[in-house]
Amino acid sequence: MLNVAIIGASGYTGVELARILCNHPEVRLTAATSRQYAGQALSQVFPSLRQKTDLVCENLSTDELCGRADFFFTAVPHKTAMDIVPALLAAGKKVVDLSADFRLRDVAVYEEWYQKHSAADLLKEAVYGLPELYRERIRSSRLIANPGCYPTSIILALAPLLKGAVIDPRSIIADSKSGTSGAGRAAQVGSLFCEVADGFRAYKVGGTHRHTPEIEQEINTFLPEPVRISFTPHLLPISRGILSTIYAQLHPEIQHADVTQLYEKMYAQEPFVRILPDNNFPATQYVRGSNFCDLGFKIDTRTGRIILMSAIDNIVKGAAGQAVQNMNLMCGFTETAGLEGAPFFP
Amino acid sequence: MLNVAIIGASGYTGVELARILCNHPEVRLTAATSRQYAGQALSQVFPSLRQKTDLVCENLSTDELCGRADFFFTAVPHKTAMDIVPALLAAGKKVVDLSADFRLRDVAVYEEWYQKHSAADLLKEAVYGLPELYRERIRSSRLIANPGCYPTSIILALAPLLKGAVIDPRSIIADSKSGTSGAGRAAQVGSLFCEVADGFRAYKVGGTHRHTPEIEQEINTFLPEPVRISFTPHLLPISRGILSTIYAQLHPEIQHADVTQLYEKMYAQEPFVRILPDNNFPATQYVRGSNFCDLGFKIDTRTGRIILMSAIDNIVKGAAGQAVQNMNLMCGFTETAGLEGAPFFP
Amino acid sequence: MLNVAIIGASGYTGVELARILCNHPEVRLTAATSRQYAGQALSQVFPSLRQKTDLVCENLSTDELCGRADFFFTAVPHKTAMDIVPALLAAGKKVVDLSADFRLRDVAVYEEWYQKHSAADLLKEAVYGLPELYRERIRSSRLIANPGCYPTSIILALAPLLKGAVIDPRSIIADSKSGTSGAGRAAQVGSLFCEVADGFRAYKVGGTHRHTPEIEQEINTFLPEPVRISFTPHLLPISRGILSTIYAQLHPEIQHADVTQLYEKMYAQEPFVRILPDNNFPATQYVRGSNFCDLGFKIDTRTGRIILMSAIDNIVKGAAGQAVQNMNLMCGFTETAGLEGAPFFP
Amino acid sequence: MLNVAIIGASGYTGVELARILCNHPEVRLTAATSRQYAGQALSQVFPSLRQKTDLVCENLSTDELCGRADFFFTAVPHKTAMDIVPALLAAGKKVVDLSADFRLRDVAVYEEWYQKHSAADLLKEAVYGLPELYRERIRSSRLIANPGCYPTSIILALAPLLKGAVIDPRSIIADSKSGTSGAGRAAQVGSLFCEVADGFRAYKVGGTHRHTPEIEQEINTFLPEPVRISFTPHLLPISRGILSTIYAQLHPEIQHADVTQLYEKMYAQEPFVRILPDNNFPATQYVRGSNFCDLGFKIDTRTGRIILMSAIDNIVKGAAGQAVQNMNLMCGFTETAGLEGAPFFP
Repeated sequence: MLNVAIIGASGYTGVELARILCNHPEVRLTAATSRQYAGQALSQVFPSLRQKTDLVCENLSTDELCGRADFFFTAVPHKTAMDIVPALLAAGKKVVDLSADFRLRDVAVYEEWYQKHSAADLLKEAVYGLPELYRERIRSSRLIANPGCYPTSIILALAPLLKGAVIDPRSIIADSKSGTSGAGRAAQVGSLFCEVADGFRAYKVGGTHRHTPEIEQEINTFLPEPVRISFTPHLLPISRGILSTIYAQLHPEIQHADVTQLYEKMYAQEPFVRILPDNNFPATQYVRGSNFCDLGFKIDTRTGRIILMSAIDNIVKGAAGQAVQNMNLMCGFTETAGLEGAPFFP
Repeated sequence: MLNVAIIGASGYTGVELARILCNHPEVRLTAATSRQYAGQALSQVFPSLRQKTDLVCENLSTDELCGRADFFFTAVPHKTAMDIVPALLAAGKKVVDLSADFRLRDVAVYEEWYQKHSAADLLKEAVYGLPELYRERIRSSRLIANPGCYPTSIILALAPLLKGAVIDPRSIIADSKSGTSGAGRAAQVGSLFCEVADGFRAYKVGGTHRHTPEIEQEINTFLPEPVRISFTPHLLPISRGILSTIYAQLHPEIQHADVTQLYEKMYAQEPFVRILPDNNFPATQYVRGSNFCDLGFKIDTRTGRIILMSAIDNIVKGAAGQAVQNMNLMCGFTETAGLEGAPFFP
Repeated sequence: MLNVAIIGASGYTGVELARILCNHPEVRLTAATSRQYAGQALSQVFPSLRQKTDLVCENLSTDELCGRADFFFTAVPHKTAMDIVPALLAAGKKVVDLSADFRLRDVAVYEEWYQKHSAADLLKEAVYGLPELYRERIRSSRLIANPGCYPTSIILALAPLLKGAVIDPRSIIADSKSGTSGAGRAAQVGSLFCEVADGFRAYKVGGTHRHTPEIEQEINTFLPEPVRISFTPHLLPISRGILSTIYAQLHPEIQHADVTQLYEKMYAQEPFVRILPDNNFPATQYVRGSNFCDLGFKIDTRTGRIILMSAIDNIVKGAAGQAVQNMNLMCGFTETAGLEGAPFFP
Repeated sequence: MLNVAIIGASGYTGVELARILCNHPEVRLTAATSRQYAGQALSQVFPSLRQKTDLVCENLSTDELCGRADFFFTAVPHKTAMDIVPALLAAGKKVVDLSADFRLRDVAVYEEWYQKHSAADLLKEAVYGLPELYRERIRSSRLIANPGCYPTSIILALAPLLKGAVIDPRSIIADSKSGTSGAGRAAQVGSLFCEVADGFRAYKVGGTHRHTPEIEQEINTFLPEPVRISFTPHLLPISRGILSTIYAQLHPEIQHADVTQLYEKMYAQEPFVRILPDNNFPATQYVRGSNFCDLGFKIDTRTGRIILMSAIDNIVKGAAGQAVQNMNLMCGFTETAGLEGAPFFP
């Protein structure tokens, strides 16, 4: 059994990691850190976990952590992650970092969108943890930058079309809608039930959301010349789920069957990507609680555009589940271990 | 007091018409028809209306109806409306029709998207009931085609930019999200609480929703050459509200202030359009229960696109409220009569 | 026009007062105070109010307030209210206090459940603002203690039966469920969307909620000997609404028609109490946004108990609406002024 | 591997059975019947199941069914079940019936609350499938009557106190609140999103819900003289979850620690019952998607009553999960097999 620790266990990503890991056949959860809840049982912070774990939240030094576990999930805010990860690696540990700190390979881009980077040397080493694109590199990596939730949903939908060079990449517009767990567990007025329920809105409109450069980085790996895309996030009155609706100009000769073939070619063997039949469109409620990414599309012959739709559970495939998938790859476990539960419906 | 009847009172548009009209200072609600609930008090069908109306649902002939009222709201499905409206007009009555039957001025387009039209001669006479565009014609009309909910939200957002000729109309993409009341009150599995709650999906993707030609008709009134646009509807787990996020390529020399000016010029005097301050974006929860349309926008200088956002309550400004606004204009009442309530928040 | 001020305008009760008052035919809203949002337009804090009010939130002294208005709604936490109200009264103003500070007539009871009272002399003068019980006294009062939301729903349901002496008052159990707006607008983890949505729980179980003595005070006005009742509040994943389900042992000879008669006798003329027909039960969605209290009941002949059900909108009849109803009475306005809107459904 | 069939797979209990069984280590799902969806893949009816099962819904005769599987879950309406079950048993199969048809041991009581019983001889043999009460009998049974959702939540909360004889059983009042999945997947207006969302109501008030005799049957097994209890169901705007709040008069000498001891004695070893610490109360969101029943209580010393609270997921411990737990016992599998997933939060 692998000893595993969650650094930053008191957020929604933390509790979801704990949920998955407490039933994972290959690991033992040996530490969960939280400054705010230090001394409290994790199952007191999250009563859903009663009888599933008796871990107590602790405020541990890196040294103490290294004595406790061999594999780490860092589920802390960006900037905090870059302060912790180097020491873990130096101690010979493997890390999946769920923050944004190691996702952007170009330090200049990182510093433009976030702030100064104090561990920039690790950017070249870190592997972007999207198994559908980087599976082999993930297997041999010691530091995985777990993708953002929006980028996961958007990149998986676009990759086959970009690879197949069937769309005009400059025309890409991603209109994404996320459940409120994406806003985290911080006590703020904007996340209160009465502010969110029975409502809907966009936020960080106009290319200002920090997932924009992350999406562009991965899109541009498929392109001879880099493009910029439009990305608009919205806040849904649901707890879990992201649906991205993505528009692009399709090359005129491309037919429905061609697109299906591109998807099949890239994802037919993927354990967590489901390509929907014609005229079936993804819905967040059909991936709820699972590591699946559901993909569907429709060609609008009136306008020459293709509309892609992608649904994930933002805290599973968009965070904790994908992190465990990465751990499985890094440690030689079955890739789907701990992630085999079917979605919850209703 | 004007005697008013609602034909088709048992749907969500019907109950909203009744809610508004029972407090309207100039009208008396004298009939409400429903085949399904004939004989039941309207306040039995909708207990929210108890003590607000003692109308009983009836299954009336057109003759009987004409004896009851001088103004009619037809809140019935398309095709049914065209069977009723001609007789009402022939009897000298005024009508706001909330179906799609008289919205499309070109009968060929109507028949392409719906079915054969049996009252095509009225298409030329009917006025598209968007007061912000057609106020004067509405005042003198006897037949108003009340706009669809999605078209209302999209056309109001686009009109100033189209009039100002500052965007490329071929680039328009409208990604719209609607509350579930838009699906009506029919008993169907897809509208059940457990199918919709805690979920989100697109439907009628790829230019197949019947509001598409309606949106295009109005957009094209501003253009020398007709365009086709992309429109994707989505189903939100809320009862009321539409948010449309609209993308278009902005002419490169146009600045934020130019766009603001176009909105101000067109809507500054409008009683039901609110232009939000910079960096404030519409949310459905801020228009809930009101006849307001909230408009906001952001220019994405990275991509040269402008993102417009528009929020309405789909059964008020998107249906019953706009219908009453049209009635007010047709009858010489204060335009805002019965519609002055502020939105409900939370 | 009466000049009216809201002290504590930035909570959910504050915004609801503003919503109602901005359409009230007899008043002008002249001040809204908020420490936290001082300097911001009220319509910036609550964008729902755009174009309905141009008030700016201020942090005003009592002297300044007295120069601004003649009637005050104090929508501040308990303890804060008792610091403000005496000076307003001393300046000759009328006040509806929405806190708990003047609801309990016995200072010892207040101090047992809250803390020391610094204006205990006003307790005798303050009138408990439930118009259905105290209408005449309210008319001539200058200080109204606006009832709590739970007590409003429970007392209105019980009063006719207590007055008629048809139940055993020691057997009363009130199981109440409230929407989340009742928890206020403070940023706290327990009120976050993800903590409340898709869930349900009890809180302050076992006679520990501070509305308990308030309910008992009013129940005991009908009784020769005081009783204690069981009251359990629950948190509903909705924004607005309280439903109370109340159990009591019914005297064996009492029939359904007797109970109906008691309700009719007490409430038939009440503008805001709706007695439902047999086998119709209240639902929060049928009073949403209105000042109605819907009452229904059923006798369980198997157990000899009567089950009463009462539905209100907790921030209308349970707070802001009832406060305005009280103002109407105190100022000689039509009792229903500003409160005539029908409930919103759906 | 045991071959298992679900009869009536197209409801919410059916899909939940499929979700659990498709990951169960000891069984193979070999048939799923549905008249309405015959010929459609189960994963077409419920897209959540894509890639988890390739079963096709069929309309099979009992003979065909018996050739397909050795263990059956009958998830059909009452009355339909009694038509199917006898033939399955006659063919030597084991059955967990999720309808009400075999829950009431007294045929007269069944016929009073339902209709004529055509397989009354099986009532004596059928075991009420609440493992916490009847584990040993379940192990050796071939026909399990899977308990109703409300009864499960109420009986588990009351059993220790009834066994300990510390409450007055005539004083029991159960106020229960259920998620909407309990109303099933039939297309009916009352279950539409817009009718249920943002609302709350009671239904079948006054001892008229058919779960009443089921609850009383099990309560009365602990009592020398039978009692009748009050039970009021309510409809929550959530998909999954039941919370029951139960009131009873506690014998005056009984202390908090005594009650805790009774719970511990009965449930300390139970895999699916979690006794909460003092002043912790159950919430449906903490058992969502799991087979747990969370129990908490509080003594109200002011009134001498004890308030019990019980939370389950109505379609897991209240239906499909408990059915699988029963199958595990009947077949000698680990009792928790397939049911070990932690609850989903948020």
